[in-house]
Amino acid sequence: MRVRHKPWAKEYILSDNELYINNYISDQKLDKLLSKYQGVAIEVGCGKGTFIYQKASLNPEILYIGIERQASIIVQASEKQEVNKLENLKYYYGDINTLIDNQILKNKVDVIYLNFSDPWPKTRHIKRRLTAPSFLNIYYQLLTKNGKIEQKTDNQGLFEYSVISLANDKRWIFQNIFIDLHNETKENIMTEYEKKFSTQGYKIKYIEVQKNNE
Amino acid sequence: MRVRHKPWAKEYILSDNELYINNYISDQKLDKLLSKYQGVAIEVGCGKGTFIYQKASLNPEILYIGIERQASIIVQASEKQEVNKLENLKYYYGDINTLIDNQILKNKVDVIYLNFSDPWPKTRHIKRRLTAPSFLNIYYQLLTKNGKIEQKTDNQGLFEYSVISLANDKRWIFQNIFIDLHNETKENIMTEYEKKFSTQGYKIKYIEVQKNNE
Repeated sequence: MRVRHKPWAKEYILSDNELYINNYISDQKLDKLLSKYQGVAIEVGCGKGTFIYQKASLNPEILYIGIERQASIIVQASEKQEVNKLENLKYYYGDINTLIDNQILKNKVDVIYLNFSDPWPKTRHIKRRLTAPSFLNIYYQLLTKNGKIEQKTDNQGLFEYSVISLANDKRWIFQNIFIDLHNETKENIMTEYEKKFSTQGYKIKYIEVQKNNE
Repeated sequence: MRVRHKPWAKEYILSDNELYINNYISDQKLDKLLSKYQGVAIEVGCGKGTFIYQKASLNPEILYIGIERQASIIVQASEKQEVNKLENLKYYYGDINTLIDNQILKNKVDVIYLNFSDPWPKTRHIKRRLTAPSFLNIYYQLLTKNGKIEQKTDNQGLFEYSVISLANDKRWIFQNIFIDLHNETKENIMTEYEKKFSTQGYKIKYIEVQKNNE
């Protein structure tokens, strides 16, 4: 996603303790926040936050956290809250790796959403795909006992890679796979990308796996 | 596949010890046959045998066995040999279950082909799909240490079911998944169905897994 650089973005994020969760949050404060909700869902690469904002408004009993490592983008997501603030929607500015490094949300996430992640088609960028083994390790640590990953993509290569990576990891139970989501199910919140691609006739692919605790 | 009933088919199959392998084959005879070849490949549901005939003519060092449980169909496959007989192509008339019941080919098969199998779309027929757990158990027993399953289908539902079934079985390593085979690879022998479906614009889906011996 290309956006205009916003030199003020980082300062804005750091100054907002209400909307943003950062690495310095105390265990007590985090536990207090989580205790208000029946579950926690995160979106890795939330972009401008359309998907997670809609999810949060539909499910006030769940805490949603949008994760994005581009400051100029995540501020656009949090700006959505200026008109209609949602108590159950927070953001985390940074890399997903740092969540684990700082022991934040470990074993506390019920659902991880991966929506239209960058497919990184070149072989030399394979490790950057959000379903590469190193990312699956992080997700496994973040998720609760029966936690899930739900991935949507319009990209054939990323879909095929994700299935193989998840299947060969052996720590996941496949719940659902759809290679043409809109043909198969009606309950679905579309992201910005999804609306765009779907109206262009691209088929949306969907993978849902659950953590295997055997 | 609908074909005219051939009342003479079963008798013909039973009388032909040259082309057909049956449950009464002795271990010695089978071992002698296998010793002539570098590998063994079977096709479960070989239909009229176009695919396996082409494979066998291209790879004379491999023994191919077409398996089909409809007598009227398998005789059409073996009829292909009347013009140009291939030493390395045999047929087995019957259910795949009976191979295991009779200890035939156990741990001796290098590749199992599943080409355009009946998708059995109704939930009550789920056990008949050729990637249902009971079939995966049979394949696992038939395959050699590094043996493979290769499945092709134009059917979205069967593809999705197969991926989930194979992934959740945990005894397979995914080698390749393509959701649009003809777009991705050139080396491919088309079956009758494949030619038909492919020219109609259907996308051919492909799954390749290897037996996991860990």
